[in-house]
Amino acid sequence: MLSLVDLRTRLASGSLSPEAAIRLAQEAIAAHEPAVGALASRLADPRVPGAGPLAGIAVGVKDIIDTADLPTGMGSAIYAGWRPRADAAIVMRLRDLGAVALAKTTTSPFAGLDPTATRNPRAPGRTPGGSSAGSAAAVAAGMLPLALGTQTGGSVIRPAAFCGVAAIKPSFRLLPMVGVKTVSWALDTLGLFGAGIRDVAHALALLADRPAIDLGRGSGLGPEAGSAPRIGLVAQDFAGAPEPAMAAALARAVRAAERAGARVRDCALPPPLPEAWAAHGTIQSYEARQALAWEYAAHRAALGPVLRGQLDAAQDLTAEAYDGARRHAHRARRVLKDVFGEIDAILTVSAPGPAPEGLASTGDPRFNRLWTLMGVPCVNVPVPGDGPPLGVQVVARFGDDGRALAVARLIERALARET
Amino acid sequence: MLSLVDLRTRLASGSLSPEAAIRLAQEAIAAHEPAVGALASRLADPRVPGAGPLAGIAVGVKDIIDTADLPTGMGSAIYAGWRPRADAAIVMRLRDLGAVALAKTTTSPFAGLDPTATRNPRAPGRTPGGSSAGSAAAVAAGMLPLALGTQTGGSVIRPAAFCGVAAIKPSFRLLPMVGVKTVSWALDTLGLFGAGIRDVAHALALLADRPAIDLGRGSGLGPEAGSAPRIGLVAQDFAGAPEPAMAAALARAVRAAERAGARVRDCALPPPLPEAWAAHGTIQSYEARQALAWEYAAHRAALGPVLRGQLDAAQDLTAEAYDGARRHAHRARRVLKDVFGEIDAILTVSAPGPAPEGLASTGDPRFNRLWTLMGVPCVNVPVPGDGPPLGVQVVARFGDDGRALAVARLIERALARET
Repeated sequence: MLSLVDLRTRLASGSLSPEAAIRLAQEAIAAHEPAVGALASRLADPRVPGAGPLAGIAVGVKDIIDTADLPTGMGSAIYAGWRPRADAAIVMRLRDLGAVALAKTTTSPFAGLDPTATRNPRAPGRTPGGSSAGSAAAVAAGMLPLALGTQTGGSVIRPAAFCGVAAIKPSFRLLPMVGVKTVSWALDTLGLFGAGIRDVAHALALLADRPAIDLGRGSGLGPEAGSAPRIGLVAQDFAGAPEPAMAAALARAVRAAERAGARVRDCALPPPLPEAWAAHGTIQSYEARQALAWEYAAHRAALGPVLRGQLDAAQDLTAEAYDGARRHAHRARRVLKDVFGEIDAILTVSAPGPAPEGLASTGDPRFNRLWTLMGVPCVNVPVPGDGPPLGVQVVARFGDDGRALAVARLIERALARET
Repeated sequence: MLSLVDLRTRLASGSLSPEAAIRLAQEAIAAHEPAVGALASRLADPRVPGAGPLAGIAVGVKDIIDTADLPTGMGSAIYAGWRPRADAAIVMRLRDLGAVALAKTTTSPFAGLDPTATRNPRAPGRTPGGSSAGSAAAVAAGMLPLALGTQTGGSVIRPAAFCGVAAIKPSFRLLPMVGVKTVSWALDTLGLFGAGIRDVAHALALLADRPAIDLGRGSGLGPEAGSAPRIGLVAQDFAGAPEPAMAAALARAVRAAERAGARVRDCALPPPLPEAWAAHGTIQSYEARQALAWEYAAHRAALGPVLRGQLDAAQDLTAEAYDGARRHAHRARRVLKDVFGEIDAILTVSAPGPAPEGLASTGDPRFNRLWTLMGVPCVNVPVPGDGPPLGVQVVARFGDDGRALAVARLIERALARET
């Protein structure tokens, strides 16, 4: 994989020019894209800024994020060739930092559960996950050092786990959503994919203009946590049990964290957190019905079957049910804040198991939904192994993105020493 | 003016057909639009649904709200003739209810403070206000019974006051913002303009699918308030003093409310509410810098001078200042909730005075900013008089839109009996 931090080191030393760094990505794309199919479109001859903290960094932009110089197809024939007038705010931020938004990455239609044709570079014959399929696959294939995705249910953490890459879904609205196609305004969150935890931490600190998020500068771990963070192990029983391979990966992550000095203990989520998990679907469906009202009314037949079925069912949801779900989520956020008074981070699985076989399903976001609804930062830490990729999820308090990344980095390093 | 409720009564009785009701609006437009200039574009030959609770209602849609069948110009040459792919969620909601989105209404460029060429039908030679200039002026001129605007600072309540029409800026996110050009995602709020309080109440209840908002069905005034709502009179000293004409209008509204049985007492906003007022500008500027980053980078010279100056200044704002302003606002929202434990509604001025003379300024939103930041429902109640229009503002607790409208209606009726 192309590591953003490694590229930055070579760029800073002068051993690599920004043009040459972008060429690395272009050569990797030429070599791997035919087999992976992670890109919806790309710039043939990009202008490469010579300066800026992300100069030389080629970025993939999920194809529900507006770009003025490349089509924004939403993963759907309904928007084939669509050219927005303006770049999304996050794309402008990338440009301001000197990065090149080199390619649009595939997305399931309107970031839903209908699959893409993208292959999983790390698990042949298995889905790369969704909806940010192309962003996860492009980073996993070594085509791009950084890619943007979005998560409404589990569309960042799940594909990252399936493809064996690092990713963060930051705190809600830490990154600007202007110019990103809306599915659910209370849930949609931009996220980042990179080769390792340091890469996504560095990128997030720059994009959010919060240097303290970056590992090494300010870890988010205060003196009271020191090198021994308090980690709560959360089973998420309300979402069912993970597969044995995933349970084993979680156990390995726990042992690695403990060897690295973390204090890990079981953490049962108090009410109303388990119940809030069920509120996620009500909020997503009620808002998606409004957000995609034009597509549903004008192009229902052209929607993917899963999304069409979800929107069909959503027509019957009442404002009362929606308001109740929002109140439930509001109460749960307060209780979760108290939970984080006792621990620095939560450790849980990123997905039920490895990527499902075939491309018919993008996998199940059931272990991601609660955290998206809570708006808290989530980081996928790949767990190295022999089979298809597996990942565990580190979750921290709202606004504590730096701490989530610091704990994720501790586990990543401990797992690397083990293998 | 065209009253939505009156039209609905005639439509329900069969004395008016939906086609004829739309024709009424078209005829009024033909008569008044040349002098007012409230419309950016309009449908020549609209399809008129025969059924639905808003069948026969012609609606004006502020020209920063996406429509698939009419251009969406954002009040700026940068978007001249721009055709979005999809209708905004609120436009789809109007269509679902049977309404006809007949015209796009003028907006100041990107809903900022640079003026439009729209005239004030009720105050010749004076600004109609902004940024929802066309929506307020079109309703005031009797061209349309309902119009959509947006408020980030004071862009619904202020033009309503200047043009002598009723308006509500509902609770934050009660109406969906998908497909509305973003200035500030924490502040931007869709609002409604109508001839009277009953009209905007009826429209909001339908658009939000919350029947209890409608006056008469459920007033939002519980038995404890009865016909004697407790009203807190708020001076907003932190925003300066209103002009004498406005102070006199507020005093008239107080006396009218008291005669109608309300219990009115002075209400000093406790800390940190006065200080939160100053946080509004930081949040708006920091988010606008990101939301309009493409326009600023690619078309800075084509921006209006006021907006350009604001964005120039916003380039120096830090994430730290923004995070501080958000924390401040968060604390203020909790304190305001406690304030509403003692009173049913706040009464304050809608603007510093009548509309300023000339079209160079759209007026000052300083008495609106705090309430937009708090996300609470605000209603403009026109105060009848001989001079240019004046309005007072009724504010209620977050989510209590029905109560804000009920108290506003009580004051509107009491003022009407007086004149």
